[in-house]
Amino acid sequence: MWQCQEVSRVSSPVGAARQSSLRELNLALVLGRIAAAGRPPSRADLAAETGLTRATVSAVVDDLIGGRLVTEADPAPRTGAGRPARGLVLAGDGPAGLGLEVNVDYLAACVVDLAGRVRHHTVRRADLRPATPADALARLGDLAGRAEADARRQGLTLAGTVLGVPGLVGDGGRVRLAPNLGWRDVDVPALLRRHLPALPPVAGTPALTVENEANLAALGELDAGPDGPASFLHISGEVGIGAGIVLDGALYRGARGWSGEIGHLPIQPDGPSCRCGGRGCLEQYAGQEAILTAAGLTWADLPADTAATRLADLAAAGDPTTLGALHDAGTALGVAVASVVNLLDLDTVVLGGGYAPLAPWLVPTVRDQISRRVLTAAWSPVTVRPALLGPEAAVVGAAGSVVRRIVAEPSGWLSSRRASWMGEGR
Amino acid sequence: MWQCQEVSRVSSPVGAARQSSLRELNLALVLGRIAAAGRPPSRADLAAETGLTRATVSAVVDDLIGGRLVTEADPAPRTGAGRPARGLVLAGDGPAGLGLEVNVDYLAACVVDLAGRVRHHTVRRADLRPATPADALARLGDLAGRAEADARRQGLTLAGTVLGVPGLVGDGGRVRLAPNLGWRDVDVPALLRRHLPALPPVAGTPALTVENEANLAALGELDAGPDGPASFLHISGEVGIGAGIVLDGALYRGARGWSGEIGHLPIQPDGPSCRCGGRGCLEQYAGQEAILTAAGLTWADLPADTAATRLADLAAAGDPTTLGALHDAGTALGVAVASVVNLLDLDTVVLGGGYAPLAPWLVPTVRDQISRRVLTAAWSPVTVRPALLGPEAAVVGAAGSVVRRIVAEPSGWLSSRRASWMGEGR
Repeated sequence: MWQCQEVSRVSSPVGAARQSSLRELNLALVLGRIAAAGRPPSRADLAAETGLTRATVSAVVDDLIGGRLVTEADPAPRTGAGRPARGLVLAGDGPAGLGLEVNVDYLAACVVDLAGRVRHHTVRRADLRPATPADALARLGDLAGRAEADARRQGLTLAGTVLGVPGLVGDGGRVRLAPNLGWRDVDVPALLRRHLPALPPVAGTPALTVENEANLAALGELDAGPDGPASFLHISGEVGIGAGIVLDGALYRGARGWSGEIGHLPIQPDGPSCRCGGRGCLEQYAGQEAILTAAGLTWADLPADTAATRLADLAAAGDPTTLGALHDAGTALGVAVASVVNLLDLDTVVLGGGYAPLAPWLVPTVRDQISRRVLTAAWSPVTVRPALLGPEAAVVGAAGSVVRRIVAEPSGWLSSRRASWMGEGR
Repeated sequence: MWQCQEVSRVSSPVGAARQSSLRELNLALVLGRIAAAGRPPSRADLAAETGLTRATVSAVVDDLIGGRLVTEADPAPRTGAGRPARGLVLAGDGPAGLGLEVNVDYLAACVVDLAGRVRHHTVRRADLRPATPADALARLGDLAGRAEADARRQGLTLAGTVLGVPGLVGDGGRVRLAPNLGWRDVDVPALLRRHLPALPPVAGTPALTVENEANLAALGELDAGPDGPASFLHISGEVGIGAGIVLDGALYRGARGWSGEIGHLPIQPDGPSCRCGGRGCLEQYAGQEAILTAAGLTWADLPADTAATRLADLAAAGDPTTLGALHDAGTALGVAVASVVNLLDLDTVVLGGGYAPLAPWLVPTVRDQISRRVLTAAWSPVTVRPALLGPEAAVVGAAGSVVRRIVAEPSGWLSSRRASWMGEGR
């Protein structure tokens, strides 16, 4: 008994572990194992992996199934004598996340279920630079309402909303600066909330979170990639250029969540002025607008295509002006990427957003700059690859980050459901 | 009993906690509290803070005192009735760490005790570029022997050696590349070990660890700074320029320990060639050799001074060429620092190594570049300050990292001592 008591305290150095948190820890432990498993684990597998007793695992699994977080997979094929054990998987008909995005030239909404599947996805192209923040967010609210209705039709319950914006997000979701949208000090939650569908409150999960879209895109890419902790730089190449830094499977946000501003790395310190106030920033050489201009195009030339697909079409057709523009952009991007790799010793760089369709032309140039400029390139090859998700990474990552939170702390969702049942029973 | 068992297992998700590790955890928990305490805690304070029973705390403290890791502070002044409780502090006469450094223009050795005090420090200035690695390391071994003898005279026992080198360290301590020393693929442990004093083996602590000196300098600065988790960039400005990135009180080493190569951030992508193979790297503008050249000096002009002190003297005297050289170097350094802050959202930048004495001239220029180029500078001021330690940060950090490991895992030291007592008793 003595030894047990000591361990329980050591596990929580700031004081004795609260008794109530035992169940929370076991719920998170078992759900985390089910989420990370390659093949649906049985209750016996979970007991063996976690060290919990089989009785405890069964009780925890019952709670998770009752809360629509876990479901039993189809029975495994019979391979020998006896009844095959039933594997457990994350439920596809329980809680889901609503992801929203406002960017310079589109609005998007997306629903991701607990198993990570995209269940709804709408993109509405529009140049939002002339729109007021209130107008842009009202239009986004319309997309959110349709997404919620579609999720409800599919039997899903939205458990939270995360909005991605191309700018610096301060306390309380206030956007301090979104230079390419022309937004400055905008109280986004206040403007958006009135247009959002009402969602059931979930303990520990804020109803609305605002986050930098490049950070969310990196999370989307992390979810889309193979299992296991990964470290990489994910670059979102839009009109602005942002990056998300993932270290050991977690987003590195920095002191105030403002990390990853790769678009403002100086490429030529005395180069052209940037909207940020600096000079010669990467965006001036490798942002979508800079590439379009160098390719002899304007936004007016793109009535239906996105800039990236039009540039990719022209490059694939061998248009020399476009190929030159992409070479110059790739060189500037490579200089910035070499700086990041020299600093952070990352072995993977992912070209995402509008860069994904342009990867066939950008990747070789970026690789060339890395091999010239990264001190360690001779011993440690750096992988440069297009993103698994394209421009949709941010909105998918936004929705996914809601379900990620539920998987990490399932007790909030379960207790909120219990509270709502009790309310219904009255 | 059931609940206890569950907790012990939850605390170690990869399987049930080993019974033997309980004592290890309690030792580390109590020693960590004593190390972090502002004022020497009593046994009762430790019991209250950790949630351990007073009997357990007393048993653990007896082990720590017996192993020369902890000692009782002088009795507190009597403030009321009764005998004052005796506070506990880290022992200054037990294990200590040996730090060594080989750099371009000096060798250094240092001993730091468990309480973090520097007990021995020798620097021998010498241009090591003409020396072979074997010769340089033999001379360093001589310094190490003197440091060990001095530590022994003071009643200290060296528990491990950490060597800092200005280059990329690969597996097994092999130096892949130290461009400014001209070293390439040097098996440093094999060359150095024969010249090192014999140290008692300590379980869990390698006898010799080789690490990048800029990383060690950041650790030295972390130890020298106020308590509590800190995040900062520490720049070591020598002939080469390296950086250590500390995030939440821990060194960020990168995928292979090769992070922080700020000296090879391109400042002008088409600038002068660098020893690394790139062009226009920061070292070409703000390395000590570049500053000396711009100030109209050569190494031959520095028979006694270090480059940094000579430049500081000239700048303090108002020499316009030197002031211009420092302004240009500070501008290039500021461009690189702005890149790092844009990427990592750090709020503190520390100018260390040879930059420390030059800080009065470099800091304003670096700050100016930050305010021009960092997107978030308007909302989040970045502190730029000279290091608390100067060029000695790396060797002090090297020695300190040995004692840091002992504080984090005291059981290795204690079990090794027990093994050596048993050996002596035979």
